[in-house]
Amino acid sequence: MSDIAIAQSKQLKHIKEIAKKLNVKEDDLEMYGKYKAKLPLELINEETIANNNLVLVTALTPTPAGEGKTTTSIGLTEGLNKIGKQTTVVLREPSLGPVFGIKGGAAGGGYSQVVPMEDINLHFTGDFNAVEKANNLLSALIDNNLQSKVNNLNIDPRTILWKRVIDMNDRSLRNITIGLGGTANGIPREDGFNITPASEVMAILCMATSFDDLKERLGNIFIGFTFDKKPVFARDLKAQDAMAILLKDAIKPNLVQTLEENPAIIHGGPFANIAQGTNTIIATKMGLSLSNYVVTEAGFGADLGAEKFLNIKSQYANLNPKCVVLVATIRALRHHGGAIKEDYNTPDINKVDDGFKNLAKHIENIRKFNIEPVVAINAFTSDTEVEIELVINKCAELGVQAVLAKGWEKGGDGMKRLADAVVDVVENKAKKFKPLYNWEMPVVEKIEKIAKEIYGARAVDFDNKAKLNLKRIEALGFNNFAVCMAKTQKSFSDNDKLIGRPEGFTVTVREIEIAAGAQFIIPILGKMMRMPGLPAVPASENMSINNKGLIDGLS
Amino acid sequence: MSDIAIAQSKQLKHIKEIAKKLNVKEDDLEMYGKYKAKLPLELINEETIANNNLVLVTALTPTPAGEGKTTTSIGLTEGLNKIGKQTTVVLREPSLGPVFGIKGGAAGGGYSQVVPMEDINLHFTGDFNAVEKANNLLSALIDNNLQSKVNNLNIDPRTILWKRVIDMNDRSLRNITIGLGGTANGIPREDGFNITPASEVMAILCMATSFDDLKERLGNIFIGFTFDKKPVFARDLKAQDAMAILLKDAIKPNLVQTLEENPAIIHGGPFANIAQGTNTIIATKMGLSLSNYVVTEAGFGADLGAEKFLNIKSQYANLNPKCVVLVATIRALRHHGGAIKEDYNTPDINKVDDGFKNLAKHIENIRKFNIEPVVAINAFTSDTEVEIELVINKCAELGVQAVLAKGWEKGGDGMKRLADAVVDVVENKAKKFKPLYNWEMPVVEKIEKIAKEIYGARAVDFDNKAKLNLKRIEALGFNNFAVCMAKTQKSFSDNDKLIGRPEGFTVTVREIEIAAGAQFIIPILGKMMRMPGLPAVPASENMSINNKGLIDGLS
Repeated sequence: MSDIAIAQSKQLKHIKEIAKKLNVKEDDLEMYGKYKAKLPLELINEETIANNNLVLVTALTPTPAGEGKTTTSIGLTEGLNKIGKQTTVVLREPSLGPVFGIKGGAAGGGYSQVVPMEDINLHFTGDFNAVEKANNLLSALIDNNLQSKVNNLNIDPRTILWKRVIDMNDRSLRNITIGLGGTANGIPREDGFNITPASEVMAILCMATSFDDLKERLGNIFIGFTFDKKPVFARDLKAQDAMAILLKDAIKPNLVQTLEENPAIIHGGPFANIAQGTNTIIATKMGLSLSNYVVTEAGFGADLGAEKFLNIKSQYANLNPKCVVLVATIRALRHHGGAIKEDYNTPDINKVDDGFKNLAKHIENIRKFNIEPVVAINAFTSDTEVEIELVINKCAELGVQAVLAKGWEKGGDGMKRLADAVVDVVENKAKKFKPLYNWEMPVVEKIEKIAKEIYGARAVDFDNKAKLNLKRIEALGFNNFAVCMAKTQKSFSDNDKLIGRPEGFTVTVREIEIAAGAQFIIPILGKMMRMPGLPAVPASENMSINNKGLIDGLS
Repeated sequence: MSDIAIAQSKQLKHIKEIAKKLNVKEDDLEMYGKYKAKLPLELINEETIANNNLVLVTALTPTPAGEGKTTTSIGLTEGLNKIGKQTTVVLREPSLGPVFGIKGGAAGGGYSQVVPMEDINLHFTGDFNAVEKANNLLSALIDNNLQSKVNNLNIDPRTILWKRVIDMNDRSLRNITIGLGGTANGIPREDGFNITPASEVMAILCMATSFDDLKERLGNIFIGFTFDKKPVFARDLKAQDAMAILLKDAIKPNLVQTLEENPAIIHGGPFANIAQGTNTIIATKMGLSLSNYVVTEAGFGADLGAEKFLNIKSQYANLNPKCVVLVATIRALRHHGGAIKEDYNTPDINKVDDGFKNLAKHIENIRKFNIEPVVAINAFTSDTEVEIELVINKCAELGVQAVLAKGWEKGGDGMKRLADAVVDVVENKAKKFKPLYNWEMPVVEKIEKIAKEIYGARAVDFDNKAKLNLKRIEALGFNNFAVCMAKTQKSFSDNDKLIGRPEGFTVTVREIEIAAGAQFIIPILGKMMRMPGLPAVPASENMSINNKGLIDGLS
């Protein structure tokens, strides 16, 4: 059965019944139909948050297909509820663009899904659209100011860093020229569209801790320079209130349900490559205000997703993750042991043995944050018992519990053992999480710490452009921002080809971007995709909807 | 008090209470928060529709500020309910772009508003975003096909008529070049963004009578030609189902309330210049299925809005409007009598007397459809009694009731007399509406009939481009489409400067566009704005929102 068929075969509970499980009154819900609702920020309670338990799901260095973090997060939530722990899963919202491309949606898979999967993968409650509109209002205000005779800010169009966004896989919009057609149609300049999750407004929404904080961050967006080289911010265009007005509902977390009728909060979806790749701080806090356990995830492997989740989000929002679940697959371990793509599904215990060094490094890294990991072996039909046994034993040698996770096949029933292992860590082995670096440290030091301690690099090179960028950051007074690394997810290094556990390598910082509203500096360690394209045969061609609104072909 | 202050001072009823007035059960509602809901298409009932009463609100030839059709429609609805007629107002959704520009929102004014006005003027229930995404998915599919080696349709990029859209006033996007930056980034070509209400997808959504009809229309969208000059349609890209999936919720009408707690259905918002300028057929039918009276409106003056409403929408959907309310203002009559803009608010009975000829021609025109008009004099503080008296008397000479309408100042209490006049026409004078032309007539004949009988033109010229377009329409077999005229709203003629009731003029059709999905051919009689710009000081600069979400500066 396809994911959508499984999702559609399920009779959903009314969302007010799900809210009841969280002791949220119907009157507090802003319903979007019967199966989705927004939760008011007033339900966030810092005291309750401190008493509840946050579990982060991350992964080893993934193969291109991904290793199933979302599916594992949802399945683990079902499992925890099955063993009597009141648990909510807190996830990112999927982007619309990839739904019509290769990647498809992102609402879990098999018997570990969040539903209604169609709505979650489509417009959902409109949050992405709100982010897009806020982003593009700022763009329109910038271009309007370029030609305005009133309050002209003297912006140098060649320095404008702010791009438009659209939630669509549309490569033709990557590089464009705008403002053509004469004096009535603006000032010609180069521009481009990114996909909406790459918008800094999305990163900001996900970092904001309150509505006022959101507004201030929007005003702090760094746009570019005037002709006399002064920095220009969104507040100089008086944009922040109008942008915040567009985000007044988007700031509220969305409640839906899992296939087993457990609560799921889905909110915000920043890119994992150039941004933090995890849901809003507000959603995580909401989950922890309402639920004894919260399971959440962060994009890509642990060198990126977990590192950012812990150093950026947890440090900033004062969160205390008590356990990290490292998702591994036998397939990915074969890959790290040297298997070619065609052999990912061919059992090979030697390759798994050799590939284990990748997982071992991630285990080491998690412990640097004073957190104990649990390994979830996300089960595939091509796995063999000896391979699984090997991984479990090698983890045990490191003092780590590894558990076969069958959430995709069996939902919560396949995840009870993983849930037990997680509860054991949370209740018996959890220490006080400590970040790897302090935001106040010098920028170069922060970058080197991540590269050396997490990636295992021997050294960090800074290209000339990056060195100039460092000076700019210094001049703008942004030294104390978090470092949001932009690196390939395919390797610990900045070279896709270095699988396993590379050593003795150097990473190169090509340039360093600034997201002043999000309070990130973003070292760019390779070519980052900000606007995907459609494949030769777009997924849209195989989609259908009948006159009852029943959708097929969405994945 | 500002419109937003009035709207915010009102304690809204829960939307289920409004639904109750329409005998719609709570379980049938798809709520979007407490004050907005979508209505299922299953509630549409053709038999009930035939027994209920449709009233169209239109206007004389307007001044740039508009004469208050929406405010009058809402006020009339309050008035009709006050005199015991169960009435729903059915309106267009406002576009987001103008909210930050000069025009502002479009939810009525003063004490005749639909609420929550902030939500209605912002993202509302996401319909505009859905239209935008469906439109832009087709764009992405087109550009993807241009460079695709699989199923390449051989589209000639120079012939592509389909544009991208964005719901933002953004003049810099009017003329752009896309696909720059090398082979990985598409095929370079000229393109541009229109504002979302100008999308043919919006026109289609508003013409669709069912979900299947919507899908077929989407497939029929005409994109351009192949290099060997064959027409290309959206269905050739297998786009219609994916586009329909994006519109699965947008097709459902939205229920909100008026300030006096009467039902308002707000759904769809196509441009009035190049499209039909009126809400969805589905919303009108929904209103008539649930309510004894439906008051609705169509954009611009009656030469455009009412003509299209009657010939296109009513003819196609088999609607039978029983009364047309012509909104007039003393201000606009002064204008048509020759007053300059600075004197619009200066009493001048001679100018009103002279300007009346504009209103008289509209009265004549409405009668050509076998419908009796009522004139609503939308009251302004600068009106004098003698001027009002004059208009009432001159209307009476034509056998038409004219009534002073004080909806803006007094809500329903100021509209009871207008309501009485409308009920008199509906109950005692309504005949069977007849369209001016039949869709099956030859294209040129349809255009000439509108130009001569409605505009009062002596002749119609066709530029060379228009003549070529006529041949294309013939070749494509689109003769039997409705004619959706694109003409200035400032004059009966195609010349802005000819106020009053011009005679002996010729109109020139410059070109004729095709909206094959909407089933329109669109004669272009002047320069049509499809993407507004922001003013020197954008409205966004004066907007604010506090940490409780209370908005100010939105109008």
